[in-house]
Amino acid sequence: MTDSIKTNKVWQQDKNHFIHPYTDFSTFHEEGSQVITKAKGNFVSDSQGNTFLDGIAGLWCVNIGHGREDMADAIYKQITQMQYFNPFGHSTNAPAAELAAEIAKRTPGDLNHVFFTSGGSVSNDSAFRIIHYYNNLRGKTTKKKIISRDSAYHGSTYFAANLTGIQATKSSFDSLGDELISYVSAADMYRRPIGAEQLTEDEYACFLANELENHILRLGADNVAAFILEPVMGAGGVLVAPKGYHKKCADICRKYDVLIVADEVVTAFGRLGQWFSSEAVFDFVPDVLITAKGINSGYIPLGATIISADIYRVISQPQCEGGVFSMGFTYSGHATACAAALKNFEILEQESLFDNVNKLGPYLQQTASEMLLTNSIVGDVRGTGFMLAIDLVSNKQTKERLYLAQQVFEKCLEKGLIIRPVGNVIVISPPLTLTRDNIDSLISKLKEAIDEVSSEMILGDNIDA
Amino acid sequence: MTDSIKTNKVWQQDKNHFIHPYTDFSTFHEEGSQVITKAKGNFVSDSQGNTFLDGIAGLWCVNIGHGREDMADAIYKQITQMQYFNPFGHSTNAPAAELAAEIAKRTPGDLNHVFFTSGGSVSNDSAFRIIHYYNNLRGKTTKKKIISRDSAYHGSTYFAANLTGIQATKSSFDSLGDELISYVSAADMYRRPIGAEQLTEDEYACFLANELENHILRLGADNVAAFILEPVMGAGGVLVAPKGYHKKCADICRKYDVLIVADEVVTAFGRLGQWFSSEAVFDFVPDVLITAKGINSGYIPLGATIISADIYRVISQPQCEGGVFSMGFTYSGHATACAAALKNFEILEQESLFDNVNKLGPYLQQTASEMLLTNSIVGDVRGTGFMLAIDLVSNKQTKERLYLAQQVFEKCLEKGLIIRPVGNVIVISPPLTLTRDNIDSLISKLKEAIDEVSSEMILGDNIDA
Repeated sequence: MTDSIKTNKVWQQDKNHFIHPYTDFSTFHEEGSQVITKAKGNFVSDSQGNTFLDGIAGLWCVNIGHGREDMADAIYKQITQMQYFNPFGHSTNAPAAELAAEIAKRTPGDLNHVFFTSGGSVSNDSAFRIIHYYNNLRGKTTKKKIISRDSAYHGSTYFAANLTGIQATKSSFDSLGDELISYVSAADMYRRPIGAEQLTEDEYACFLANELENHILRLGADNVAAFILEPVMGAGGVLVAPKGYHKKCADICRKYDVLIVADEVVTAFGRLGQWFSSEAVFDFVPDVLITAKGINSGYIPLGATIISADIYRVISQPQCEGGVFSMGFTYSGHATACAAALKNFEILEQESLFDNVNKLGPYLQQTASEMLLTNSIVGDVRGTGFMLAIDLVSNKQTKERLYLAQQVFEKCLEKGLIIRPVGNVIVISPPLTLTRDNIDSLISKLKEAIDEVSSEMILGDNIDA
Repeated sequence: MTDSIKTNKVWQQDKNHFIHPYTDFSTFHEEGSQVITKAKGNFVSDSQGNTFLDGIAGLWCVNIGHGREDMADAIYKQITQMQYFNPFGHSTNAPAAELAAEIAKRTPGDLNHVFFTSGGSVSNDSAFRIIHYYNNLRGKTTKKKIISRDSAYHGSTYFAANLTGIQATKSSFDSLGDELISYVSAADMYRRPIGAEQLTEDEYACFLANELENHILRLGADNVAAFILEPVMGAGGVLVAPKGYHKKCADICRKYDVLIVADEVVTAFGRLGQWFSSEAVFDFVPDVLITAKGINSGYIPLGATIISADIYRVISQPQCEGGVFSMGFTYSGHATACAAALKNFEILEQESLFDNVNKLGPYLQQTASEMLLTNSIVGDVRGTGFMLAIDLVSNKQTKERLYLAQQVFEKCLEKGLIIRPVGNVIVISPPLTLTRDNIDSLISKLKEAIDEVSSEMILGDNIDA
């Protein structure tokens, strides 16, 4: 952090008053924050006049790119027409109703009913209020337990934080609903559970599916409501499952009347080159599909919990005389947020952005592998579509994690690139508008940054740091 | 619902795909929704060309009035400048930092640190993750229980739904964290607990404060983390506490090191003629202040959890080597939502809207009492500022609730007025831009509607319905 920024009024206001998510307070009080002041297309700039290629699309969300005037126009128009009115009971607005219909057109199976929220955490949180309600209404009142996965990320409400399986997020925080939630292994191709190291991809998929089945049987199928999974694990380190995994898990869930909840907060709206990835990429149809982020490219907070026709049929019966479906939020189906999503859908289609991902995704993955895997601290380069991770290790044989992603992040910043550091993993999730030149620039800067960190580390002889 | 609307495409999309909050499914499948298509100032219109005075400001939130071009301009400008970038770790944006500082200027006490969310539910939910974390860090690991109140409304995440004390919202839903949450009586001047019927206002305040103290002692002060209250209970029926109640409760909480959480989702940003009502109206300073809605008049989803300097001091220490404050949301401090709030603050000030509430609030309350209390089914007319409730009863002596607010709502719709029906209570929470003429029109239509419902009821001889 340069000294000049510390005279900046916004920098001071931020440091004094804004509580950031995931702040490292060991340095925040001194360093404060970088102030992002401009955003356009695939680039953002800070208050010091530096410009950065945005390798993370804001935070896995700005799929159509930043600062678009066509989005601003659509939002302006909706605000002056009808910016918001509550959607409670028998009141609606055109953008929310149209968006729900447009979503239903694109979802797999009969996922035709949309409960809107203002983000992914609350969409996951709401999914389980709905699922438990559904099981109560259909008389399965013991069927409540939820199976999540190690390294899963499902959000930050009090309940969603416990669905999350990333242990590092839990230090000193309490957890809620421990009696309901348990975890099976992540579908991690790089670091496998004991006994699975030497299996073929198909055998490994069976191994993980067996673990899920045994877990259901141990809990008792009558007690298990749902299995939640990200089709590709995101914050957990872009873990791409072995081929066949999703379908095998889905079949087991069906066998035991366990609902499958697909958390597609990251993997929908083109990040993997499709509207949704569950069926189109991974060959399974969930019972509940969660989304947010790419739904309107993060221009206005919006999330959705999308449920199957069967679940809707049950929950859309009055549960008692005079009873109402008593859940929901002031901003459920917010007219302006939904209008932004409709415009976003139009842009994704008109600009053929999924084609761009399908064309350039393999190039991004291949270039990254070729350029980065040669470095001694890069253990794994993995991903699919416009999701990419670089896994830093101190030893390629033992795969011991090397927690230097933050250092790589800082080097990248100096070079005009924003990546996301998560412990030992560098995550890339760029706008879908990324060009081939952008990819070349991104990988080249990233390679320089990793090379520098790795050289400094060897000089400092702290390979085990 | 007229037949013509059923040919409307949006009506059909809504009915087929949009899951509304608090839907009455006994009629929804047949009737569908009213489509609100325009909103301007204090009025909204539907797809049938009907215009309505908006007596509820969208849903307690559109404080500056609907469809404002100055808000649309400010939002347009922010979107084209820098619509969103993630605020995680050491990254910020100018509107969020400025808004946090502007909030801190206006909050009571040293409530100077702002954690942003996208709505009230999540702000309440997050408050308790933070409070429990705070107590863990300061070594008070048993101090976790939360005291809420009967009839309280605190939101709809899985956890916030249990903070809510309205029993009618809980039918067939599961609750989470029962071991943590318990309830004391609402501060209800109209329907008092047994033993409190004949007390003076001050005695009644003491009675309720004593109940709180005994409740803390029964749970054990070492086990009690916080007491949460709406300064004026909103969805629970606009319950205005006896004078002195808040201060007495706050003193008791201080005595036992119990934090006071003020849920000002409704009562802030001018609804009671002040930025915040805790100290300015009710003479107490909370440790945590929750807000949303009026913060940007609902133009874009936004909420905030505002914490004291003491809590911040504790939670802004790293909890372990390399540890971060591992909670937060993609849309925490969303630049465009925060820019809308800054513009909203400017409008509230430049148009002296608090003065309007302070001037016309008493007129609204007085006119409502004078015009409505004479009706045989109106048991109570109560409120303060721009919050008003009419309590329907089948018998003024026994105060037995008469659940006909929905019928009054439907009559009001026919007359061009939107009110909010909650069981036996009619709630009014208009934009702060309401004029004296609007008030006259509002009360006059409401009186006609109540008179009609009451006449039909007497004709139908279903006074006990």
